[in-house]
Amino acid sequence: MGYPCSLSLAIHLRLRNYALGVMIVVRNLLNGEALTMSITEPRVKEENLDPEDWQGMRELGHRMIDDMLTYFETLRERPVWQPTPEDVKTRLREAIPAEPQGVEQAYEDFVRDVLPFSMGNVHPRFWGWVMGPGTPFGMLADMLASGVNPNMGGGDHVGNRVEEQVLSWCKEMLGYPAEASGLLVSGGSMANLTGLTVARNTKAGFNVRQHGLQAAPRLLTSYASTETHSSVQRAIEVLGLGSDSLRMIPVNADYQIDIAALEAAIAADRAAGHQPFCIIGTAGTTNTGAFDDLTRLADISQREGMWYHVDGAFGALAALAPTLRPLVAGMERADSLAFDLHKWIYVPFEAGCTLVRSRAEHRQAFTLTPDYLKHGEGGLAGGDLWFSDYGIQLSRGFRALKVWMSIKEHGIEKYGRLIKQNVDQAQYLAALVQSNPELELLAPVPLNIVCFRFKVDHLDEPKLNALNEKLLIRLQESGIAVPSSTTLNGKYAIRVCITNHRSRREDFDLLVQTVIDLGKELATA
Amino acid sequence: MGYPCSLSLAIHLRLRNYALGVMIVVRNLLNGEALTMSITEPRVKEENLDPEDWQGMRELGHRMIDDMLTYFETLRERPVWQPTPEDVKTRLREAIPAEPQGVEQAYEDFVRDVLPFSMGNVHPRFWGWVMGPGTPFGMLADMLASGVNPNMGGGDHVGNRVEEQVLSWCKEMLGYPAEASGLLVSGGSMANLTGLTVARNTKAGFNVRQHGLQAAPRLLTSYASTETHSSVQRAIEVLGLGSDSLRMIPVNADYQIDIAALEAAIAADRAAGHQPFCIIGTAGTTNTGAFDDLTRLADISQREGMWYHVDGAFGALAALAPTLRPLVAGMERADSLAFDLHKWIYVPFEAGCTLVRSRAEHRQAFTLTPDYLKHGEGGLAGGDLWFSDYGIQLSRGFRALKVWMSIKEHGIEKYGRLIKQNVDQAQYLAALVQSNPELELLAPVPLNIVCFRFKVDHLDEPKLNALNEKLLIRLQESGIAVPSSTTLNGKYAIRVCITNHRSRREDFDLLVQTVIDLGKELATA
Repeated sequence: MGYPCSLSLAIHLRLRNYALGVMIVVRNLLNGEALTMSITEPRVKEENLDPEDWQGMRELGHRMIDDMLTYFETLRERPVWQPTPEDVKTRLREAIPAEPQGVEQAYEDFVRDVLPFSMGNVHPRFWGWVMGPGTPFGMLADMLASGVNPNMGGGDHVGNRVEEQVLSWCKEMLGYPAEASGLLVSGGSMANLTGLTVARNTKAGFNVRQHGLQAAPRLLTSYASTETHSSVQRAIEVLGLGSDSLRMIPVNADYQIDIAALEAAIAADRAAGHQPFCIIGTAGTTNTGAFDDLTRLADISQREGMWYHVDGAFGALAALAPTLRPLVAGMERADSLAFDLHKWIYVPFEAGCTLVRSRAEHRQAFTLTPDYLKHGEGGLAGGDLWFSDYGIQLSRGFRALKVWMSIKEHGIEKYGRLIKQNVDQAQYLAALVQSNPELELLAPVPLNIVCFRFKVDHLDEPKLNALNEKLLIRLQESGIAVPSSTTLNGKYAIRVCITNHRSRREDFDLLVQTVIDLGKELATA
Repeated sequence: MGYPCSLSLAIHLRLRNYALGVMIVVRNLLNGEALTMSITEPRVKEENLDPEDWQGMRELGHRMIDDMLTYFETLRERPVWQPTPEDVKTRLREAIPAEPQGVEQAYEDFVRDVLPFSMGNVHPRFWGWVMGPGTPFGMLADMLASGVNPNMGGGDHVGNRVEEQVLSWCKEMLGYPAEASGLLVSGGSMANLTGLTVARNTKAGFNVRQHGLQAAPRLLTSYASTETHSSVQRAIEVLGLGSDSLRMIPVNADYQIDIAALEAAIAADRAAGHQPFCIIGTAGTTNTGAFDDLTRLADISQREGMWYHVDGAFGALAALAPTLRPLVAGMERADSLAFDLHKWIYVPFEAGCTLVRSRAEHRQAFTLTPDYLKHGEGGLAGGDLWFSDYGIQLSRGFRALKVWMSIKEHGIEKYGRLIKQNVDQAQYLAALVQSNPELELLAPVPLNIVCFRFKVDHLDEPKLNALNEKLLIRLQESGIAVPSSTTLNGKYAIRVCITNHRSRREDFDLLVQTVIDLGKELATA
């Protein structure tokens, strides 16, 4: 049957519109079955989502590039943030469009309704929460990733090798063992959840994946400071361990975990018949940028046979700056380590990372291979890079590419300089605050976070809190700068977190000036 | 002190390079402290990650647009997939670069090493696993999202309103109640985990977030068919419930959950003193595209007071095609519903979605508001759209934008037509398989998945399995088409899953032809 098959294929290539009919005819002549489709049947009209006008799409793409690069280039001329107008809000409540409006109009909608009223964290004076500002080249890399659009869950394709290289680079950056395992995830919350899942499954002492926590003979307890990020508590809750089992250990005056209190808590739990299984250290707390004593925590975890997880969301990257590296000493001993590349590597959202010392324990916590995900011995399903064996996601986007291309663009040493620059800027701002009698520094500044407030001598604490809360809202609404807030020992703090490569010292001068102006206005109002 | 402060600002604006020195001098003259910085100190040199050559970056961006659009336009001329060459693999093991190599070189690396060896799921003849192929406009929207780079965790900015609108559209698409809650997530795995977290926390009958599962008085059991996607088991394991507690109910000949067996299992668990809390129905199984009887499952869940979760990863979207809509009847009664927009809305990775009927229960399962995330009464921290209260992620990317812009581009009716087109193509392929005596259809084709194999009469089952496994690898390596595989009743199946808007009927002709050619070659080898 070799020849007629070749024939049908040849006809297929020459007579595309009628190929189907011809092929079926040839087949049926050979096997004698009834004719099901005839040569006269025209090809079914099929549509797709690609542009009809490729050249028009090219031109629109160029316009987008120009608009976005101009947007980046002129950031300083615009407010950091402005509220969304009512007419935009109204349009954003419209029902789903049934009919096409085309690419030009869809882009116009973006330019009119989205671009001006966005969060503003790309702006040089955005210092709220812990936000990276992204980069133009990171944006372009994300476009390429989205265009190529591989599924990074597994298989033998180059995307997985790019991610593997990025993970190797992460280990290099942080001084983590080269043989460790890792996974890029959506961000710090998933990075903590991933690490703590491995912790729970490895240290429970029974098959918790199969039998569940109801089979646990003893309460599994974990330990972290009161300054630990809320995503750790959320992970503990999702994992079914219960927030009560997460012992929140007090901190010292520098907002570091109190080591004596930690050891006492572990001992008390052991005495009560519980099973302490995990210590969570923080490299760079969210409130003040404090570092726990990561070496002491490593020692205690080792001595107690417990898992050691470090949440280094942004602080872990301090390892890149030679003068800051002592802060993270001991982090390299963690069993699992969570951090973000969309924070202090400044790539666009989303890019977090979990590193796990033991590849076997990491894999054991997640691997699940149903028939339809069978790993092959060749072809696309081959290879041993199945990231879906190492985390919760099965389908996974190509977030590795922006990290890969950005680090190639700048080289890793520049990132170390920029991190140091941000820390120096925090020291600069802290000095400005301390040299101004109207301002009060509310916490030490070990890294890149400055917590302060406007002070009026005759106001009591509740009134000062209310004034500073109002001041922060007014500051954000002015469009001049966006810090966020926190509360430290009952005091409402204006919190400036500098993970922004675009900030300059003059931006902090302007911040201080504006805070003082607004504070005086509010104090006399 | 109003006047000197204004003065320092004025000087700042006029003499940028020396503003800092001047300002400190003025301040110190006023408050009498020692001079810490002098007017002669030059401005600290600060660097950033923005391009030095903006025009060059524009030109590179245009080139990327042109290259990627040409890549899309000429997909058919290239192999679907090809293995990664050794020299590329070697380069992808290189250590982290210390020095910058610049944007041109970084892009050249992408063009040389990444683009040709990617997964290939953008190609018209990629039908492996369940993969969306993306679109050029979706790629451009992802670029815009990455450029604007908002954090969609919360706050009063327009991005959150765009996501809220996309969620409203999702509810419209699926006939789900308008007052329901929702969240965009990375994909189906996270969508299932999110829904099942709400299920567990709502139905446990005690405060599982605080006390953990060890406090559960009875075993919490859940129910799903043996054809349920593995991400459900993974979610159950992550949640600490244990895979044993997930009762895998057998399926009927159409691969639907056996209702009688389900009811018997629930009754048996109740009799044993367990606590059945959740039924998981599937709209479109991964193996064969089967739909459970979603109305019956809704009835049983309601009668038993259990949570009803539907995994509709791709199948839920059948709701968009009028003639397919009966398949999902009952889905709108789910307490939580998981599906993907990067599958049958064809947007690039990543975009999944969880909808939850009760906003209060959804929020209650996740909300956690530490001081540094305090929601404000104005400014950027204001507003009530804090998506971080509804899921695991805190920092969240702007995945809503590509969905928003794509639906505007095409209108939702076209998506219904394309989904129907894919289902028709599956019927077409099934008919081709059935009309060819060398091929055997291995399962019913209720939707978009065709499982078949090459058949040789004198071979036993193990040999047929081995032959088809080899055949699939050869097919992938030929670059002509990429199906994946599964095993059905012990038979190795070539599995063609059509969630590809670029496929045409002629592509399935070519697939069948190639499978037959390869099969004959292997059978006679």
